[in-house]
Amino acid sequence: MNKVNVAIVGATGAVGTKILEKLIERNFPVQSIKLLASKRSAGTEIAAGGFNYIVEETVPESFEGIDIAFFSAGGSISEKFAPEAVKRGAVVIDNTSAFRMVEDIPLVVPEVNAQALSNHAGIIANPNCSTIQMVAALQPVKEKFGLSRIIVSTYQAVSGAGAEAIDELGSQSQQFEGRVANEAEILPSASAAKHYPIAFNAIPQIDVFDASGYTLEELKMMNETKKIFGDYEMSVTATCVRLPVVTGHSESVYIEVDQEGVTVEDIRASMEGAPGVVVQDNPAQQLYPMPLFAEGKDEVFVGRIRKDPNHAGGFHMWIVSDNLLKGAALNSVQIAEQLIRQ
Amino acid sequence: MNKVNVAIVGATGAVGTKILEKLIERNFPVQSIKLLASKRSAGTEIAAGGFNYIVEETVPESFEGIDIAFFSAGGSISEKFAPEAVKRGAVVIDNTSAFRMVEDIPLVVPEVNAQALSNHAGIIANPNCSTIQMVAALQPVKEKFGLSRIIVSTYQAVSGAGAEAIDELGSQSQQFEGRVANEAEILPSASAAKHYPIAFNAIPQIDVFDASGYTLEELKMMNETKKIFGDYEMSVTATCVRLPVVTGHSESVYIEVDQEGVTVEDIRASMEGAPGVVVQDNPAQQLYPMPLFAEGKDEVFVGRIRKDPNHAGGFHMWIVSDNLLKGAALNSVQIAEQLIRQ
Repeated sequence: MNKVNVAIVGATGAVGTKILEKLIERNFPVQSIKLLASKRSAGTEIAAGGFNYIVEETVPESFEGIDIAFFSAGGSISEKFAPEAVKRGAVVIDNTSAFRMVEDIPLVVPEVNAQALSNHAGIIANPNCSTIQMVAALQPVKEKFGLSRIIVSTYQAVSGAGAEAIDELGSQSQQFEGRVANEAEILPSASAAKHYPIAFNAIPQIDVFDASGYTLEELKMMNETKKIFGDYEMSVTATCVRLPVVTGHSESVYIEVDQEGVTVEDIRASMEGAPGVVVQDNPAQQLYPMPLFAEGKDEVFVGRIRKDPNHAGGFHMWIVSDNLLKGAALNSVQIAEQLIRQ
Repeated sequence: MNKVNVAIVGATGAVGTKILEKLIERNFPVQSIKLLASKRSAGTEIAAGGFNYIVEETVPESFEGIDIAFFSAGGSISEKFAPEAVKRGAVVIDNTSAFRMVEDIPLVVPEVNAQALSNHAGIIANPNCSTIQMVAALQPVKEKFGLSRIIVSTYQAVSGAGAEAIDELGSQSQQFEGRVANEAEILPSASAAKHYPIAFNAIPQIDVFDASGYTLEELKMMNETKKIFGDYEMSVTATCVRLPVVTGHSESVYIEVDQEGVTVEDIRASMEGAPGVVVQDNPAQQLYPMPLFAEGKDEVFVGRIRKDPNHAGGFHMWIVSDNLLKGAALNSVQIAEQLIRQ
């Protein structure tokens, strides 16, 4: 491929607009860009990089002549149209959960498993936002010291639930005194039977529950991490919580490394200079990552690295990243860049 | 003791006012109540239970004739005046961290270790808020199945940092669009060198850092838990995070039990009916505890109980309680009630 013809499905959504921004910002070698969405959004004008794009309705024929199609419009849209795009010769980079756990479909974070791209059949899956930032940060630790166990508790932003969830947090936040009476229509998810206020609250439900008592968001982190690392013996377990934060997921991550005698300095050194990872870890200077300051940034930030005093090989860390960028749009564009390089 | 003469030191503070409320609400057998605070607050009138109380400055002589003195005005005030109160025959119930880890001073959550009250020398310590709710919830699990390990990540409310922190969250929350520019003066703590906005953010620092990289809040949870359970072999490690929540601490708690073959139903059954604990755990009904709805309630709420699929004996749960009530004022009053019963 030289210059490529790109389509973005879900171009009016929170992630779709960021994909367009990242393509422009990173000088992605574009021949043409086609913005696709639902019939309802067709005709919408989107200004970006000095051009005015007009959004078109997604139909099977939309993918004629497309080289790379980014999908970020929900799992059912991907299931319906991704095969149509592949049939017409496009490579699909899918940001939904539709194909992530399909055995032959690569699930890729370029810093971790770019090699998985060498063998695909037209569809490449972009992992869940909370998974991406965790595996990107832990990859150098795993490579250097071995990693047998992860126990993670997340602190997730509402933008992961879309633009309506951001609006809901914004309006609820105005009501500070009568906060318990805040009305809720979107979170934990628009399709849920019950809705709870997110302002001044923490909701321990992201996505729906499975019979095991875990939510699908938690199971995504547990299963996707193993697939990306290519290690199904690793123990991974998660608790996912939604917070009144606009953008930026934070994670309290507990790990056990295989190698003996590893120190905090060893862990920190392994991460410093790792691609896409920035260590912000100086307690004396109150330096640690926070979601408010990760918003709009490409990197995965890591701090609060500590040793478990009671358990050899046990370490804590605090991992923060913009869930719409490295957690979604940026990682998708990086997958496309990697495809072009190969 | 029949009816008792009570003093509340720090009576104008967030916890002090709740202690007065709880004494009245629970028909505590009071002969007299004396409200004490700093010189600055002396003269303040506080209306409660149909009476008007006038706050007095705390001096050593304030404790003449006092039977029980509740302290909640900061560690340095407790260090200065608690010995004066004891010297004058009062029993001190101290809500600061001043005496918690002193070997001969009982550190008490009545549901867990009321027996520790039988042997005191005038001072009884009330544990840290985040510790109390965790040990209250885990006590029935420990008793029934044995407990060897706790890994906890907290989601803590600003009211734990006092009334000024609540005001700061309130005013910052009005600025939704320009949120990164929010000015901060109080959190993570008034005495810290740097302050960060808490609205739409998560701050992974509560209290100051120790050389180990842990904060004192984290070390309190780790050390106090072992002392209250009377088990110094137990592995306990913590990450403490401040959230834009007004009141109600939440905790993502991972445990390992000793006994083999324990099920989620076993864990749940052990907690149902435990004193002060309410199980809210029905994923199908989206029933789980949340801080917004725990505010103003006495109980410790537990939900999201799940088994770690990769690790025998490993379980998750989500524990929520009002940090000013069971986490502070209520537990102090319960200690006093227990003292009177003995």
